[in-house]
Amino acid sequence: MTLPEKTQLLSRTIEHIDITEIDVVPLVEAMRRMSFTARDLARAAEIFDRMLRDDGCGIILCLAGSLVSAGLKKVFAEMVRCRMVDAIVSNGANIVDQDFFEALGFRHYIAEERLKLGLDDGTLRELHIDRIYDTLIDEDQLRVCDEATQRIAEGLEPRPHSSREFIRAMGVFLEREHLGAGDCIVYEAYKAHVPIFCPAFSDCSAGFGLVAHQHACGDGPKVSIDSAKDFYELTQLKVKNTTTGLFMVGGGVPKNFAQDIVVAAEVLGFDVPMHKYAIQVTVADVRDGALSGSTLKEASSWGKVDTVFEQMVFSEATLAVPLIVGYAYQKGAWRDRPASRWSTLLESVREVSA
Amino acid sequence: MTLPEKTQLLSRTIEHIDITEIDVVPLVEAMRRMSFTARDLARAAEIFDRMLRDDGCGIILCLAGSLVSAGLKKVFAEMVRCRMVDAIVSNGANIVDQDFFEALGFRHYIAEERLKLGLDDGTLRELHIDRIYDTLIDEDQLRVCDEATQRIAEGLEPRPHSSREFIRAMGVFLEREHLGAGDCIVYEAYKAHVPIFCPAFSDCSAGFGLVAHQHACGDGPKVSIDSAKDFYELTQLKVKNTTTGLFMVGGGVPKNFAQDIVVAAEVLGFDVPMHKYAIQVTVADVRDGALSGSTLKEASSWGKVDTVFEQMVFSEATLAVPLIVGYAYQKGAWRDRPASRWSTLLESVREVSA
Amino acid sequence: MTLPEKTQLLSRTIEHIDITEIDVVPLVEAMRRMSFTARDLARAAEIFDRMLRDDGCGIILCLAGSLVSAGLKKVFAEMVRCRMVDAIVSNGANIVDQDFFEALGFRHYIAEERLKLGLDDGTLRELHIDRIYDTLIDEDQLRVCDEATQRIAEGLEPRPHSSREFIRAMGVFLEREHLGAGDCIVYEAYKAHVPIFCPAFSDCSAGFGLVAHQHACGDGPKVSIDSAKDFYELTQLKVKNTTTGLFMVGGGVPKNFAQDIVVAAEVLGFDVPMHKYAIQVTVADVRDGALSGSTLKEASSWGKVDTVFEQMVFSEATLAVPLIVGYAYQKGAWRDRPASRWSTLLESVREVSA
Amino acid sequence: MTLPEKTQLLSRTIEHIDITEIDVVPLVEAMRRMSFTARDLARAAEIFDRMLRDDGCGIILCLAGSLVSAGLKKVFAEMVRCRMVDAIVSNGANIVDQDFFEALGFRHYIAEERLKLGLDDGTLRELHIDRIYDTLIDEDQLRVCDEATQRIAEGLEPRPHSSREFIRAMGVFLEREHLGAGDCIVYEAYKAHVPIFCPAFSDCSAGFGLVAHQHACGDGPKVSIDSAKDFYELTQLKVKNTTTGLFMVGGGVPKNFAQDIVVAAEVLGFDVPMHKYAIQVTVADVRDGALSGSTLKEASSWGKVDTVFEQMVFSEATLAVPLIVGYAYQKGAWRDRPASRWSTLLESVREVSA
Repeated sequence: MTLPEKTQLLSRTIEHIDITEIDVVPLVEAMRRMSFTARDLARAAEIFDRMLRDDGCGIILCLAGSLVSAGLKKVFAEMVRCRMVDAIVSNGANIVDQDFFEALGFRHYIAEERLKLGLDDGTLRELHIDRIYDTLIDEDQLRVCDEATQRIAEGLEPRPHSSREFIRAMGVFLEREHLGAGDCIVYEAYKAHVPIFCPAFSDCSAGFGLVAHQHACGDGPKVSIDSAKDFYELTQLKVKNTTTGLFMVGGGVPKNFAQDIVVAAEVLGFDVPMHKYAIQVTVADVRDGALSGSTLKEASSWGKVDTVFEQMVFSEATLAVPLIVGYAYQKGAWRDRPASRWSTLLESVREVSA
Repeated sequence: MTLPEKTQLLSRTIEHIDITEIDVVPLVEAMRRMSFTARDLARAAEIFDRMLRDDGCGIILCLAGSLVSAGLKKVFAEMVRCRMVDAIVSNGANIVDQDFFEALGFRHYIAEERLKLGLDDGTLRELHIDRIYDTLIDEDQLRVCDEATQRIAEGLEPRPHSSREFIRAMGVFLEREHLGAGDCIVYEAYKAHVPIFCPAFSDCSAGFGLVAHQHACGDGPKVSIDSAKDFYELTQLKVKNTTTGLFMVGGGVPKNFAQDIVVAAEVLGFDVPMHKYAIQVTVADVRDGALSGSTLKEASSWGKVDTVFEQMVFSEATLAVPLIVGYAYQKGAWRDRPASRWSTLLESVREVSA
Repeated sequence: MTLPEKTQLLSRTIEHIDITEIDVVPLVEAMRRMSFTARDLARAAEIFDRMLRDDGCGIILCLAGSLVSAGLKKVFAEMVRCRMVDAIVSNGANIVDQDFFEALGFRHYIAEERLKLGLDDGTLRELHIDRIYDTLIDEDQLRVCDEATQRIAEGLEPRPHSSREFIRAMGVFLEREHLGAGDCIVYEAYKAHVPIFCPAFSDCSAGFGLVAHQHACGDGPKVSIDSAKDFYELTQLKVKNTTTGLFMVGGGVPKNFAQDIVVAAEVLGFDVPMHKYAIQVTVADVRDGALSGSTLKEASSWGKVDTVFEQMVFSEATLAVPLIVGYAYQKGAWRDRPASRWSTLLESVREVSA
Repeated sequence: MTLPEKTQLLSRTIEHIDITEIDVVPLVEAMRRMSFTARDLARAAEIFDRMLRDDGCGIILCLAGSLVSAGLKKVFAEMVRCRMVDAIVSNGANIVDQDFFEALGFRHYIAEERLKLGLDDGTLRELHIDRIYDTLIDEDQLRVCDEATQRIAEGLEPRPHSSREFIRAMGVFLEREHLGAGDCIVYEAYKAHVPIFCPAFSDCSAGFGLVAHQHACGDGPKVSIDSAKDFYELTQLKVKNTTTGLFMVGGGVPKNFAQDIVVAAEVLGFDVPMHKYAIQVTVADVRDGALSGSTLKEASSWGKVDTVFEQMVFSEATLAVPLIVGYAYQKGAWRDRPASRWSTLLESVREVSA
């Protein structure tokens, strides 16, 4: 068979859901007295609402999977704008390959049903189209994104940076280039001083930019990404703001990393409480013993998560996240919630002058 | 109810399966002409055997999940000893919290059935026992492990290190302390010059050690972990050894990271082929769009994995990995396979003198 | 620990969601241009809406799992009332143990979180409380339900009956006893002449009633349940109304049974088309090769389901079903859809007089 | 693309694994002290071995999914021959469409990898090839199988039969036609007087035969399949042999049906114990609340399964079943186990003369 042209394949764009326009409260409230996932979801939504009402509770949003390309970008950008989140811990893909990528003017596309099956991936390869299950990306545009991160690296002081520092520089870049309009998570977080951490930062488009940067620098001074610094910084936030809640979408490194800061604070000699709240949306199975699907009760044996207000929701994220965030948005607790501007707790004089 | 004493709970040790003692070839061959997972597993075993027979093909083992604590340590140590693997990309937990931890003289324990359910996690917390599904760990011993990594950090030159460099230093430490006997992956890899990468290295026990180190150093010079350097190093290996195969256990960052080096090599201007072989053992669902469960066909659209010899196996790892590795071990292709000593391609004079 | 009294455990009732009161159209429409489950769900909702608008298309609703006890009873009852379904194929549990059970005046209850873990099931056993994951049932009330089915059996002519005939008699019973008020699926279907089939009818509360009936009859004449007659009757409906669509919630016997009538019609010499529409909500994995998770494309190789309008939705039912049915309800195609009264096509003179 | 000819597609046959030839004991014993599925599988194997050693314990094997077509036929036939099972409860597909089908001289075939993806199902449809995930069937041969069941129906007395009676008649048919050689479950069970029940018997190839039979009989006397009689018969076996164990492969109707006989016995006024042993191999998720994935602890709240010796194994069946059965086979407890010949407890004079 002959596939259509690249422009035909990349013609229907992913559109991001706008939870401010849809009232999901009656739906979520009706789910409260049902069974199974419906009830779990309603309880998770209530716990998130409760976090927002708990004075001084810092909220850490953890993102794994391909969420931004799936149409959830506006949800997370809105959370930043509405002071519903104080820090973000994410895989690199959501932040760089998808969010920053769209800020550069690019888009994600709806794949035709037959492409999902995998038989045409050879053709996609020839056309420079990358596939995420049912979603398509122009690979040539991804290369532009890689290069932008390389340029940002070149503009930084040649020393170890946390991923948070680098992502803040991405925000500066977007402002300077007038590219932050719309619903860019990186830009909204930059403006609101919400720190974003990617503990495996080289595992994304920025990794390509950084490898190119380090390659170009040879043995000379260069920018490096210090993942230990990430961990240290996030731990400092826990020390400075001891009451915390986690909103985890997917599992993986972000889930483990954010949970671990309780232990890290202890290691540094600070007596901090476990995360007071924890909700997770995931379809990972508990039975393979991996962290992604491990229960939040299990995390309590590690001293990471308290078990009074914890809830796992067995659902793919595109279904559950708009309902949970939409519920809390409509309930409006964020209106009275002050901006925490956590980045300001971390930025040294040197950075600010950079 | 009253739980037994800590010593009672931590009395039955996890024992690592020894695939050199069990002949699984008749079983795997019988599975070849069945359906579903049996056939897929047999095909994966054959592809792994084929990788081993392919002259010059470098094999990268990717580890995610809690595999070492589950009794698979000896399998991976054997793979290193028998030249069945040329590089390892892992989450930090397998390498530091579990493998290095056991080298320090500690063990993992079988949890009673009722502990799996989560109701007793509060008591475990009080007893300083951590739980991984059906497996228990003495948390006080984990703190000793954290401290050992801190001491290792203190012994390193205060500059950015790749996780590979740090893990090599862990091997040096084990040798110096006469702790490497038995089946330690870190030590066997150190001796065989097999590099181990943990792209999210601070997301494990070493992270605690590093945070403590950096905290103690204050504004002074300190060790940092440069995840970009990890990516650069692994990419260099792909450039120097262009034919490669992946053996992935679980998904997550290791899967993505190892796949991405094909693209990274291209970004640096090298024209390298996709990974020629790829097998993955996972129970992750493809339908949430996340990388862990994404098909290897999908990876071919990204130009990362060739599709002639790829096979996914839908199974929890403790069941499938001994069969796949055991089959290839018994088939014996490793006997004629030369040691690649990939670490020597990466170690600069400075390191060697360190 | 001491569990609370039975009355305390059975105090918070499951409440059934009312999709007529909640406008989900904006939500579902926003999901149309997202990825993963959101997009699949939106497409399934549109396919269901399209079925309703297709003149002469008969719609068969297939139910597996514990859906009625989970709070979906009113959704299905509403579908019957609003002429959105022409026949139902279900496991016995939904129809007898849960729907008919509630019509007898009984309820389902919300289980406390800790009960889900299974550690207290021994105590529940002592208290005569049955558990479905997070939902509780008074076992003594279930025995009353069993007995009611025995009484219904005793009132029937001693001959082979299809499950449809028996369930119709349950409707007659409810009418006579003035028990059908509210949202009883069995009763609404009885009034609307919508046939309900349970192909494994003895695998539920009615099975207990029938065993008791047959035991009491000894060697004398007795009521029997002829599952072949079920299959014959449903096949006749396909022959008489050749354009059909399937709305499957879960998999199992109902999915297979309803798909098979296309082949059965062929076996009888009728040339009927495949099911024109098919949507399924399930979390079953495709990789175990079982029917429940098998794709609707696979069904097309069997000549059962056409592939133009088919969509699987990877979600637990309590989340997806209210959105799909709610969307179609609000779109209102049912208003112009005539009642099909399919039972009247099957009822012989003998039955009507019974 | 053009697909190859039908004969080419149907050229590589599925071969059934022979557990008597493979010693899996060292493997299973090594798994005993690992974690996750390996440990669960080893424990399930030990529980099965224990059942076999428990004097007077009746063992009921429950089969759901496509197991026979997947290459497990010989395993189950061997279990019958070696007195490792006293009754079988199955979906119809395994017994009629797959086991009886192969006894008629037909085979199952290995599908090429690309056929799994579903894109070629339209072509398969044209070629009269049916697909089960990665396995192919000649649909024309399935029609021969349907017709054979019709002929068997025609040879029976026109009255309600349990599926067990019908399947016994299938054994008689195979004997008369000299078709039972090899590893036919139906024929081995017939010879060993092991009853086989299919509680949803019309949901398979036999359903097509029965529909054709009933259609041909019109209003005259005809064979019917009484699923209540199935339930009554299996319950009688529980009453006559009160100590019982369940070996469940997959979930669905067979799991529920076999568990329910404890309650049915109580309904009839007999005080019988719960199933003393229960093991289940499944990948079904517990979180959708459906019976297939529900824990065996949950079943204890219903008074169906005791919890001292119960174990679920999270694995696709083709991997786990040969290990569990192979372990028990090699351990040899079956050698001293008497044949129970349960069918003889059920066969009335009338049947024997039929």
